[in-house]
Amino acid sequence: MIPVKAKLYLVPVPIDDAAPDTIPSATLTILHKIRYFMAERSKTARKYIKMLDHPLPQNEIIVIELDKHGTPDLPTLKSWLDAGQDVGFMSESGCPGIADPGAEIVQWAHRSGYEVVPLVGPSSLLLALMASGFSGQSFVFHGYLPNKKEELIKKLRILEQNTVKMNQSQIFIETPYRNLSLFESLVSSLQPSTRLSIHMVWTGAHAFSKSQSIKEWRQNGCPALRKDIPAVFIIG
Amino acid sequence: MIPVKAKLYLVPVPIDDAAPDTIPSATLTILHKIRYFMAERSKTARKYIKMLDHPLPQNEIIVIELDKHGTPDLPTLKSWLDAGQDVGFMSESGCPGIADPGAEIVQWAHRSGYEVVPLVGPSSLLLALMASGFSGQSFVFHGYLPNKKEELIKKLRILEQNTVKMNQSQIFIETPYRNLSLFESLVSSLQPSTRLSIHMVWTGAHAFSKSQSIKEWRQNGCPALRKDIPAVFIIG
Repeated sequence: MIPVKAKLYLVPVPIDDAAPDTIPSATLTILHKIRYFMAERSKTARKYIKMLDHPLPQNEIIVIELDKHGTPDLPTLKSWLDAGQDVGFMSESGCPGIADPGAEIVQWAHRSGYEVVPLVGPSSLLLALMASGFSGQSFVFHGYLPNKKEELIKKLRILEQNTVKMNQSQIFIETPYRNLSLFESLVSSLQPSTRLSIHMVWTGAHAFSKSQSIKEWRQNGCPALRKDIPAVFIIG
Repeated sequence: MIPVKAKLYLVPVPIDDAAPDTIPSATLTILHKIRYFMAERSKTARKYIKMLDHPLPQNEIIVIELDKHGTPDLPTLKSWLDAGQDVGFMSESGCPGIADPGAEIVQWAHRSGYEVVPLVGPSSLLLALMASGFSGQSFVFHGYLPNKKEELIKKLRILEQNTVKMNQSQIFIETPYRNLSLFESLVSSLQPSTRLSIHMVWTGAHAFSKSQSIKEWRQNGCPALRKDIPAVFIIG
């Protein structure tokens, strides 16, 4: 008998705590069969494992964390997989490896010959881009932009030029408590005709997405923008 | 009484016909309440509406198509929304507006003051990037690369340089019947140490994702690559 090789599953978690129903049943079916997990934070992972109705009691589920530098414990991971145990990797929010840790463990799995299976779930970047109405045929995600005002404004102007030259959507994020300050830099440094989309990271009917010109953002402000909810910004 | 404003919902559909369970219940709950749809193709939209257990019989559901140039019938859309009817927009596969039509209708909705709500569902680009192990902190989606061999190779070398210079994942797609020809161009024109990830567009446990160096791809080939299944390619 040839043993079935264990797999590394990339398990998305909800973006909102209030939205466990954004995780499809195909993902839940696999999640419910996994006992061994690696996670960015054990506490959050266990919260979601419980919220998503895992049939096992918490004391029969094993979760290990990345260390404080984000480095995975690869020998333990290898020992689980070699024992034929599927492993689930979870990040703090949304899809592992997208604007979140996960890449290192996946790279290791490919190098070591283990099968990697990505599961379907919510991604705030993708929801933001869908809702922006900007080009989804050509886009860049930049992660966080520079902190220093002068460098930030220089960077924003480059992104603005790329949008015009290549019809390419420019996506970026900011730490929530700096959302308002980023908004100020955007409206003060970009051309009035440039289009900006702001998406508050909520899912389903609670989502907030608005796309308009810098001129209109200047007139209307963005009262919805908060210091405690992540947002995705797109120039397009 | 203030009338509730109708919304434009962006409704993802499965990537595999075999995987209706990749659509989360939060998305299904909203889909099941919508009677008016706009779609890339009416036939496909109706197939998914049925597959996803819409409670209404097909003859009570209205679906209009984009015309052959991909242009939406905006006056009809406006008449539905103004009558207080929510509208769902669907593309042929996965998430509307991501490497698919949808942007024009969303732009119009923002300009006209209608609320746009993106729903959670599968995206082959996102699954491919998660499974690649390449950077999800900085990435570009290029859509289709040039057809002509000479231009294609020139473009691939630019993408390869960007990967190295910026640690930025470079994502692109090809018409399925050209998958093998693109693979040949990749392995023959890139550096042996460059990493390439290939993701066959299936979901869940059927997903195929492999990341290795060009040197390894040259040695092993890609027997999984098919002329009838879309694939996502990433240099990272």
